[in-house]
Amino acid sequence: MEQVSGNRAFGGTQGVWKHASTATGTDMTFSVYVPPHEDGARLPVVWYLSGLTCTHANVTEKGDYRRACAELGLILVAPDTSPRGQDVPDDEAWDFGQGAGFYVDATQAPYAANYRMWTYVAEELPALIAAHFPADMDRQSIMGHSMGGHGALTLGLTFPDRYRAVSAFAPIVAPGQVPWGEKALGRYLGPDRGDWRRHDAVALIEDGARLAGLMVDQGAADPFLDQLQPDLLRVACEAAGIPLTLRMQPGYDHSYYFISTFMADHLAWHAARLG
Amino acid sequence: MEQVSGNRAFGGTQGVWKHASTATGTDMTFSVYVPPHEDGARLPVVWYLSGLTCTHANVTEKGDYRRACAELGLILVAPDTSPRGQDVPDDEAWDFGQGAGFYVDATQAPYAANYRMWTYVAEELPALIAAHFPADMDRQSIMGHSMGGHGALTLGLTFPDRYRAVSAFAPIVAPGQVPWGEKALGRYLGPDRGDWRRHDAVALIEDGARLAGLMVDQGAADPFLDQLQPDLLRVACEAAGIPLTLRMQPGYDHSYYFISTFMADHLAWHAARLG
Repeated sequence: MEQVSGNRAFGGTQGVWKHASTATGTDMTFSVYVPPHEDGARLPVVWYLSGLTCTHANVTEKGDYRRACAELGLILVAPDTSPRGQDVPDDEAWDFGQGAGFYVDATQAPYAANYRMWTYVAEELPALIAAHFPADMDRQSIMGHSMGGHGALTLGLTFPDRYRAVSAFAPIVAPGQVPWGEKALGRYLGPDRGDWRRHDAVALIEDGARLAGLMVDQGAADPFLDQLQPDLLRVACEAAGIPLTLRMQPGYDHSYYFISTFMADHLAWHAARLG
Repeated sequence: MEQVSGNRAFGGTQGVWKHASTATGTDMTFSVYVPPHEDGARLPVVWYLSGLTCTHANVTEKGDYRRACAELGLILVAPDTSPRGQDVPDDEAWDFGQGAGFYVDATQAPYAANYRMWTYVAEELPALIAAHFPADMDRQSIMGHSMGGHGALTLGLTFPDRYRAVSAFAPIVAPGQVPWGEKALGRYLGPDRGDWRRHDAVALIEDGARLAGLMVDQGAADPFLDQLQPDLLRVACEAAGIPLTLRMQPGYDHSYYFISTFMADHLAWHAARLG
């Protein structure tokens, strides 16, 4: 593991790290904010999964989260959104291929070799975090934005005992029912829509997955509402008895100005559940 | 004046605007954050001047200031750092020419026609802000980073009745005594060092300029300390009886992680003086 950069921020350290990933077969870059803490302390870990086109850098540079993490004593980890590199299959479309891993392990050629973001985020990177940072891996939570909200919801619903809090900003809640998701899941996972259901938050809930609670902020002026469909999540949570705090935020769009506005709220909600 | 973008943020609006500047003879872009406010209210205006290589976008995207501005009811204006365009004289060096206007009105060819950032920031842009935003121009203050800290100090020292608070992050305090400044002032203002003194904070203080107070944060791990020389400002303020709060911040560098960490402190300090 190689440190790309390290900057003092809000009394802690914002680091960027690179390593050779066995999951993806590529170099992967991620960022970690470690808040001020006492020597020997082990801190809860909040995962932040980013959206289409993003790398670790978007939230790292544009997100207002360090003040809240410093006050609440939270580590925040921001992975990349896909494998990258000249040898990694890509696509001319902005919403597929590099920058659009959709947090699945692809089963289809030519993507299956590298596009293994599920294994990367759920297994490989947590092991690295546990080994190299002052992290208490018994206290993890997860959040994400847009495609990363999809990832946070599906990982959270799959591992309800691992992630003590799950929240999202403008998540893709039902990729199996919207164009972004149909394109990505179809090409990564193949044409059998049954195989998509464990990577679709609404389908997971319909199929029995449960969470103690869920917090979602959605900008009411988000231009991608047709891809996000927060109402499908509301209906599924109501039917399943999952307590959902869904806040439609008037005037807010899909940008980091929206995310940053509400990120401290989410981090406080996570901290209350991380103990 | 043309709106480039507008995003809801922390209950207010982060806007980016473009206009044809008479001062520079070019199009100029700037950003304005307007916090939530009541209809008809007039709000204090904080000017934020950026450093070498920056545009309005650096602080707009990377700065953690909107939460504090929303809480304190402050408008924040971020101008560009120079005229820009294919017809604007530039230089191969990263620290001169476009992105490096140094907040002076150039007198030397070929820069004199466009490099008029003093007039732009002190006269033209304030008139635009007064005309188009809910601004109380009787309550202005100014801050900046690095080259922009130099701009904030020299404007603040020149117009002590206009700017009710003046502060800086890692400012160039004595451009006449360091390589960045000698290069820029020499080429914009000519070889007579006497002409540089009104664009040099330490020289202005030596020549009699006074302020009610001054707040400066400086990262102790800043790699540009040889260009910044905060001690020269300390000595000048002590000799002149100007109350200076100079905080050397251990471990902090020159980046926006540093600025963002302390920006809320500065905004609170400004708000206390803006009434």
